[in-house]
Amino acid sequence: MPSSNTSIIYLKHPTEFPVVGEHFAAQTNKDFKPVLKDGEVLTRNLVISLDPYMRGKMRDTGKQSYSAAFEIGKPLDARGIAEVIESKNDKYPVGSIIHAFVGWEEYTVLPDLPTTRIIPEARESKLPLSSYVGVLGMPGLTAYASLKDIGRPKAGETIFISAASGAVGQLAGQLAKVWGLTVIGSAGSDEKVDYLLKEVGFDKAFNYKKRTAHDALKELAPKGIDIYFENVGGETLEAALDNMNTHGRVIACGMISQYNTTKPYGIKNLMQVVSKRLTIRGFIVADFQEQYFADFFRDVKALLLENKIVYKTDEAKGIEAAPEAFVGLLQGKNFGKQVVKVADL
Amino acid sequence: MPSSNTSIIYLKHPTEFPVVGEHFAAQTNKDFKPVLKDGEVLTRNLVISLDPYMRGKMRDTGKQSYSAAFEIGKPLDARGIAEVIESKNDKYPVGSIIHAFVGWEEYTVLPDLPTTRIIPEARESKLPLSSYVGVLGMPGLTAYASLKDIGRPKAGETIFISAASGAVGQLAGQLAKVWGLTVIGSAGSDEKVDYLLKEVGFDKAFNYKKRTAHDALKELAPKGIDIYFENVGGETLEAALDNMNTHGRVIACGMISQYNTTKPYGIKNLMQVVSKRLTIRGFIVADFQEQYFADFFRDVKALLLENKIVYKTDEAKGIEAAPEAFVGLLQGKNFGKQVVKVADL
Repeated sequence: MPSSNTSIIYLKHPTEFPVVGEHFAAQTNKDFKPVLKDGEVLTRNLVISLDPYMRGKMRDTGKQSYSAAFEIGKPLDARGIAEVIESKNDKYPVGSIIHAFVGWEEYTVLPDLPTTRIIPEARESKLPLSSYVGVLGMPGLTAYASLKDIGRPKAGETIFISAASGAVGQLAGQLAKVWGLTVIGSAGSDEKVDYLLKEVGFDKAFNYKKRTAHDALKELAPKGIDIYFENVGGETLEAALDNMNTHGRVIACGMISQYNTTKPYGIKNLMQVVSKRLTIRGFIVADFQEQYFADFFRDVKALLLENKIVYKTDEAKGIEAAPEAFVGLLQGKNFGKQVVKVADL
Repeated sequence: MPSSNTSIIYLKHPTEFPVVGEHFAAQTNKDFKPVLKDGEVLTRNLVISLDPYMRGKMRDTGKQSYSAAFEIGKPLDARGIAEVIESKNDKYPVGSIIHAFVGWEEYTVLPDLPTTRIIPEARESKLPLSSYVGVLGMPGLTAYASLKDIGRPKAGETIFISAASGAVGQLAGQLAKVWGLTVIGSAGSDEKVDYLLKEVGFDKAFNYKKRTAHDALKELAPKGIDIYFENVGGETLEAALDNMNTHGRVIACGMISQYNTTKPYGIKNLMQVVSKRLTIRGFIVADFQEQYFADFFRDVKALLLENKIVYKTDEAKGIEAAPEAFVGLLQGKNFGKQVVKVADL
């Protein structure tokens, strides 16, 4: 049994980018002696998932949103893959590999939550454990379900995806290719653009730091955009609206450019929504869980095992690396789905 | 047969508000001797409908939108009610009262268009002829169909309607009341607000020139807004987004505050679409014609004849008054549905 536990503690609400040490920091409990109550398990955390939506949890607990705020003085939480090493819950015997909301920490005392589930195949899987919080987890379901339900893609249409090499974007683009669309992506470095074009199979891609989305879309989408998979907001959204076709759909998945600023960008061309009869729709992945999870998991796992899709993961090593990795994610420094490898299985 | 015909001619594209005499003006043809080709009819125009969407037709013909641009040097066109006074089309015999796209003029030579239809009941109707281009015409169908299809109203919900005493807003509000919603409206004068509260039966209403939509909605919609019927855009849209509930719907019918400016307002809180899982959807009434027209016409006519709804019309007199009335409409000077009475039946 462990006698020490390092956790990332939430210290203070940021107004712009969070700062390591000021807003969150690692703390080690050297006298870790957990005592489980009925229903609880002790987990040894293997992988945790860092995702942009977590920035929205760094807020005053009084402000409502779709996910609970982080609590000052407690470890941040995340979807993770963990091994049960002590159990007072018959559903999760010792040795189970589970998908659960754990702390950003080495070990978590986990109450009996409806979001916890065993991954029976985990020990024999040909896929890395991080897949279960990435391409086969929440970001994967996000891409699959929102593309189907909001995007309603038709073969021959054109989709534009921002943050296209990220956790959601890279899968959304590949699914769109499988479903017969022309796929255009934007990303923040030439290396990412190369990855999209050469490894992922996007039809076209551009580096938004080198040219405006406006110019790029005019050139790369001469027939216009039917679906915009929105991950970034701001000027990119404005450019997408200007280049959309009649009856276009905007999948409002996230707007990361607006999360860490006190001066949000003003979108000046919403009149396009009226003129072109566009639909802009926000969602959270939980809205789609019941209807889409089984199909998603089956379809995407098959595509992965047949090597018909690829998925890049950016793995930080050790729980102490988590805060820096999260700030990097908000700044677009990650390359692929950001996870933290806390321990080996 | 007439020997003179006064028409309003489109002269020049405006960049901000159109100016009478500069962008459009009355011209009289004192040697009017129309000769009809096969399929054409000559109409004596009785009522024409002025609507905000027409501002979008005052543009370069090269710029695409959902409706054809007005042509320089020709009469502007509009939905109207007219009497057929000469006919080379068996479908429309002399004496028919028709609903058709006619010119802003006294007489129009009308080709055989699919949008023309006879109103069989027109001569005996208890309702004013202007109803057929208002509450029972395009603005009425706009309110009815978009509220049903995009708004998906449920009894007990709250709807906020901007430009609420206008052609679309006043019917939308009354339908929402019939369907069991709490109805809040904004308008641009105390007189309009009084009309909404005392004659139309809105639950709450405010004058947006006296207080911000932000303040007003916070007070008047303490449980939040489920549906926003958007006619104005700009700050009002921003305030509505801030006050919407999870899974709220925005019916993007128009954004009149943005039609006559070269400096569009920047909407800074679109992140609410993600956080609250909102849907914003644009449309044009033609999208709904087939599915909704019959139900709409039957339902709304019944409500009118039973005096369960009211409908205010602002009637300019004579075709020469049309340009001034249109500018007034764009400036919110009209009180109710703007029409021009060209002639008596």
